[in-house]
Amino acid sequence: MGGPEIDRLIGLLAKLPGLGPRSARRAALKMLQQPEMRMLPLATALAEAARAVRPCAECGNLDSQDPCTICADPHRDRSVICVVEGVGDLWALERALVHRGIYHVLGGTLSALSGLGPEDLNLSGLISRVVTGNVTEVILALGATVDGATTAHFLTDQLRPTGVAVTRVGQGVPIGGALDVLDDGTLAAALRGRRSA
Amino acid sequence: MGGPEIDRLIGLLAKLPGLGPRSARRAALKMLQQPEMRMLPLATALAEAARAVRPCAECGNLDSQDPCTICADPHRDRSVICVVEGVGDLWALERALVHRGIYHVLGGTLSALSGLGPEDLNLSGLISRVVTGNVTEVILALGATVDGATTAHFLTDQLRPTGVAVTRVGQGVPIGGALDVLDDGTLAAALRGRRSA
Repeated sequence: MGGPEIDRLIGLLAKLPGLGPRSARRAALKMLQQPEMRMLPLATALAEAARAVRPCAECGNLDSQDPCTICADPHRDRSVICVVEGVGDLWALERALVHRGIYHVLGGTLSALSGLGPEDLNLSGLISRVVTGNVTEVILALGATVDGATTAHFLTDQLRPTGVAVTRVGQGVPIGGALDVLDDGTLAAALRGRRSA
Repeated sequence: MGGPEIDRLIGLLAKLPGLGPRSARRAALKMLQQPEMRMLPLATALAEAARAVRPCAECGNLDSQDPCTICADPHRDRSVICVVEGVGDLWALERALVHRGIYHVLGGTLSALSGLGPEDLNLSGLISRVVTGNVTEVILALGATVDGATTAHFLTDQLRPTGVAVTRVGQGVPIGGALDVLDDGTLAAALRGRRSA
């Protein structure tokens, strides 16, 4: 339509999650109409982030400092490690302000289907952090999926020799959720997880 | 969460049409996990497009060559100019392969509400193209809105002295559309625009 530069830009934008060809065209057009204000700042931000951001050697979080902001924060409780599948889960927990300890990012879950075994996850790092650090509790904040459950079982086994307390996040009715729209598995988990009122 | 670089990137992505804060985070995370493959190519494509793409001096289309690919194409019929509000409309018509003439991008419509007058649109360019070129027909492909209709009336008046044939795109039932979901205005336009079967 308007030369290879525009086609290439739309093609790359369309690959972003949440954008398809249609919204990629809209985004490209909006930026092309204000190149100085919209395109160049984004180009710079992308290049800067690609240059600066690295996985934290300690926990696997993505940050422009290493150890990451959370691991380096003296106010975080280093005795409680929250284990998550990915950085997106860590971000979600941080936005919710519900965990004041530190994290450990596995980089995935065990998955027979996608052929992910223990050697593909950041597991040895977790064990050695528990053994060498002053850790009292490991919270497994994994998805309520088959792979999440498999991974939680495996991690519980692996961590047993260290003597650390291993917990899993609760499962049940989401806050704000009505019971009649929930699936059977969630209802079963909610009943199993009942507590005295 | 992960330093100022990540925050800035998410903030800029969230401003793109079609992306909100949530999808901007997902897009940023996906790119951060493959910086070489995903971020740097997009950064380069943005910078390249910002550098290369300019409005065509003839028709107002955005292209990395000037005159644009369409204006420079010897196979296009230069006697028929299709007038559109914006480059997005031009792209839509080009994808549909329905116009083999050339274009003229107004850069907006007359709008009392947003205070856009004739001097804000690329009008004089259109008149002089019609006067100096060998133009036989001007197709007004403007939206079926109040502003679109106002602009069409104004352009028809302005073009009358040149003697060129001025037409407007048809209005009515969209192809694939059912009548019972259409609004009253569209139904009225469809009845007004009826033709012998």
